[in-house]
Amino acid sequence: MKLNNIKSKEILPGLNGRMIHGDSITWAFWNIEEGSEVPEHKHVHEQIMHVQEGKFKFTLNGNTEVYGPNTYVVIPSNVPHSGVALTNCKIMDVFSPVREEYR
Amino acid sequence: MKLNNIKSKEILPGLNGRMIHGDSITWAFWNIEEGSEVPEHKHVHEQIMHVQEGKFKFTLNGNTEVYGPNTYVVIPSNVPHSGVALTNCKIMDVFSPVREEYR
Repeated sequence: MKLNNIKSKEILPGLNGRMIHGDSITWAFWNIEEGSEVPEHKHVHEQIMHVQEGKFKFTLNGNTEVYGPNTYVVIPSNVPHSGVALTNCKIMDVFSPVREEYR
Repeated sequence: MKLNNIKSKEILPGLNGRMIHGDSITWAFWNIEEGSEVPEHKHVHEQIMHVQEGKFKFTLNGNTEVYGPNTYVVIPSNVPHSGVALTNCKIMDVFSPVREEYR
């Protein structure tokens, strides 16, 4: 299966993602425009974020860091988090269980 | 957290991976040498494979295809699969639940 055959969805302004869904995993491949913001939120799904390209300022439970290429963050269930793209970014997120609202 | 700070483990000959573990997700970042083989096996964990670089010949439940960059495969729980690296490869696998034996 080719990633490019998955239609990209704009989940928030400037935050476009291709999603792969299994039975218990969602894998999101994001292209994020500089300046795009993800407001603070939380969800029952465990999440692991991996920055491939760009700089993403990310706040997890009140702690802010700038993440660049080859970094990752484990975001436990129900812990509040938010972010802003300091540059254009390519980021992957993996979730379990599936993010049904991303289908 | 930096991926390069995770110690790589050789799980099979020529198959080296850095592992991130959450509570319900394992994310493996593989560097695979040309010619390395993964014998047929299966596991209860759902798995999604994503090829970043190289060519990987992969057999899922008897169906063989060659996967190149920007491809993916969803491997349901308990479905047999195997593979061989036709070139050096960079591949990611995501599993749920956690692959405890990779900790």
